[in-house]
Amino acid sequence: MQSIPLPWGVSPLLENKLPLLLASASGAEGETYAKGVALAATLTLIIVYVSAQLFGELAIRIGLPAVLGELIAGLVIGISGLHVLMLNEGTQVADWMVAAVSWIAGSSTASTRQIFDGPVQILFDDYAQNGVGILLFKIGLEADLKELIRVGSQATSVAISGVILPFALGFWGLSAIFHLETIPAMFGAAALTATSIGITSRIMQDMGVLNTREGQIILGAAVLDDILGIAILAVAVGIADHGTIDIAGVLGTVVSAVLFVATAITLNRSFGPVYINFLSRFGNPYSILIGAITFLVFMAAVAEAIGLESILGCFVAGIVLGNTSATKELEKACDPLVALFATIFFVTIGAKTDLTVLNLSNPSSQVGLSIALFLILVAIATKMAAGYVVFTPYKVNRLAIGTGMVPRGEVGLVFAGLGASTGALSASVNVAIVLMVMGTTFVAPPMLRWAFAREVTVSS
Amino acid sequence: MQSIPLPWGVSPLLENKLPLLLASASGAEGETYAKGVALAATLTLIIVYVSAQLFGELAIRIGLPAVLGELIAGLVIGISGLHVLMLNEGTQVADWMVAAVSWIAGSSTASTRQIFDGPVQILFDDYAQNGVGILLFKIGLEADLKELIRVGSQATSVAISGVILPFALGFWGLSAIFHLETIPAMFGAAALTATSIGITSRIMQDMGVLNTREGQIILGAAVLDDILGIAILAVAVGIADHGTIDIAGVLGTVVSAVLFVATAITLNRSFGPVYINFLSRFGNPYSILIGAITFLVFMAAVAEAIGLESILGCFVAGIVLGNTSATKELEKACDPLVALFATIFFVTIGAKTDLTVLNLSNPSSQVGLSIALFLILVAIATKMAAGYVVFTPYKVNRLAIGTGMVPRGEVGLVFAGLGASTGALSASVNVAIVLMVMGTTFVAPPMLRWAFAREVTVSS
Repeated sequence: MQSIPLPWGVSPLLENKLPLLLASASGAEGETYAKGVALAATLTLIIVYVSAQLFGELAIRIGLPAVLGELIAGLVIGISGLHVLMLNEGTQVADWMVAAVSWIAGSSTASTRQIFDGPVQILFDDYAQNGVGILLFKIGLEADLKELIRVGSQATSVAISGVILPFALGFWGLSAIFHLETIPAMFGAAALTATSIGITSRIMQDMGVLNTREGQIILGAAVLDDILGIAILAVAVGIADHGTIDIAGVLGTVVSAVLFVATAITLNRSFGPVYINFLSRFGNPYSILIGAITFLVFMAAVAEAIGLESILGCFVAGIVLGNTSATKELEKACDPLVALFATIFFVTIGAKTDLTVLNLSNPSSQVGLSIALFLILVAIATKMAAGYVVFTPYKVNRLAIGTGMVPRGEVGLVFAGLGASTGALSASVNVAIVLMVMGTTFVAPPMLRWAFAREVTVSS
Repeated sequence: MQSIPLPWGVSPLLENKLPLLLASASGAEGETYAKGVALAATLTLIIVYVSAQLFGELAIRIGLPAVLGELIAGLVIGISGLHVLMLNEGTQVADWMVAAVSWIAGSSTASTRQIFDGPVQILFDDYAQNGVGILLFKIGLEADLKELIRVGSQATSVAISGVILPFALGFWGLSAIFHLETIPAMFGAAALTATSIGITSRIMQDMGVLNTREGQIILGAAVLDDILGIAILAVAVGIADHGTIDIAGVLGTVVSAVLFVATAITLNRSFGPVYINFLSRFGNPYSILIGAITFLVFMAAVAEAIGLESILGCFVAGIVLGNTSATKELEKACDPLVALFATIFFVTIGAKTDLTVLNLSNPSSQVGLSIALFLILVAIATKMAAGYVVFTPYKVNRLAIGTGMVPRGEVGLVFAGLGASTGALSASVNVAIVLMVMGTTFVAPPMLRWAFAREVTVSS
């Protein structure tokens, strides 16, 4: 029950007023804790939004997509900068943040630190995940399914060559040039095959090119890339763990993933309209949105359960509901959710990016840097080459298609993290993969802008 | 690294695939944990939404506001029912929920329990708090400020008599009839003075009567009630802690609260339009919404810092931005947020309501029940009487105004929790206050519907 020095003399109240939702009476400690959580989250949120707006605006002013500004805002306030938004495990938020919250909430420094390490991380990871989920749901709703099917074979050729080329060249280089063992070389090469569906679709949305033929080919290829990705993961993990490949298991996983996406496509004409029609008979005007979001989180959970990214489930949920009387209404309803939560997602990607791995006084960082340079070159060159492989009867902007596959984003980090968790990766290889992911993610927005600007795209 | 028995044979993948946002490589444990959090939250969310839709629809079908159905949905899935949404401290979620999540995520039962006790509670409390905050923000945006000022003196008379009458009658009854000591009687009486601005405004919104003159009087009175509430709290806590009243402190608190609301009203014509004009010059079309929400959370934090409810800060933020070129757009943008998050708020209110305190084999429950019956009668009668005290030159539905002040909701629970934390309340008095809060909250929706139906209201 320590006193808090506040100018307006309300300290007894601040100590004692129970927070709004703490229904079960748990005394002054629980109260101060809940107040601390609310204030810590609020302070963090304000800084996230203000920095995202500021750097987003700067990016727009110099002709780049807003998302690049949001990534940079994350760099500035995250682990590489001001230490305001600290989401990496085992890191600590800046002292002044802790001091500010402790002072207003009346909590101890230690308990406020615990609040930033626990609840605030949980909330911002959740906001971010919801944000990218809703973004992909909206992209699924807006996707032109006919066009997506029409470009299916082209997307497939891009996806497959966009996996084989980087894996082959990366594996060869890591083995032959850098003399890595088979397993680290395999994980490094596998990380090169990823495509960040979240980042690439947001960039295209910012640029207004998502519904061009190129946009739909990139989108389709990114979806297929995720399916191919789980196959590569299964193989890599099998070899690292047991030295063998469980062919039946890998096939089973890929088949269930393909079935999941294929089923969703067929549900677009049957289940989707029927479900919306059912919801529209409810008396509550919010029922359609709540019912759609319920379906969305269900599909995200199914995707996660069969080993896909949960956001792929969100995209597929959007595809299912993309052909109903309420689709336009749902698209509009997603806008505020995307605005508030997807922004947090892109800032957190930047905030988690640790530029201190660039420290050159560290030997593993030096080796890592040379591997990273190689990986970045391979990452960009092979995906762009994949764009030229696309089999299509139409004239399309092949440069833009390849460039759209460049950002590895969070998907590449999954591979890196997985490799690290098997213990197979040395520190330098791990650093190299992280740098490659960062490099491709930050270079993609300006590259994609440049690629789309070179040629008027064929609108679908 | 235990194996999970799943039909499609992907167990090695399920064990090893890192969740989307776990950027820092933290191995299989962190991964399974994050997957567990995502699945536990998803499962809970689906059940919350499905039950809210179901009982909301039932309520509408029998002519009651949807919010009553959502409160009942909370009773059914919360601590009084299926133990799916368990937000009260020290309670445990149903075994089958834990088993389902453990099975899919591959986490141990103990770790899954910890997930439900920690992250899931944090997320749902946060969703709920955001939901009621956005609801009050929207009500602030939509509020007719001129009308609110015009009915100011009437709202003041309702608020003051709605505080004095229940406090006086409650204190007298608890002392004279039930022979309580001064301090418990004071806390019990203080809990009677509260008005739940969240519940009462949602009921009126469901009924489409929020913008009638009665609606605006109730809204104004509920705001003033919150200011009076912090004064009463300050007095009660001062007496319980030190046996004295810090008159300067209480006055300082009330003055800062009044200044906060009064300043906001003046900002409606100055800062609000200027701020929106500034935001509209940003290149990002989402800037206005993000800027408005940034202001909203700032005001919520200020309100909390000066001892008011944070949702009062949200309401006031809505008032400030209620007179701009973007107000209509902001109102529309709030709709999906209200739909998704405020629904969770009302379900959590029901979920936290513990009907097991009604267990009559428990002696403190028996005493508590008789006190509760007295409190409920006083609670309803005195607020309705306050409606008849309203000084107004217009013909208004006085019955509706008084009835609108009846639900105590979460605000009453704050008083109960605070009293309990001082150690002054016996178990029976605590039970009685909780029952009074529950009773008034659940009885308000049908009562308010009945009151408004008796007379065509004067539209403002």
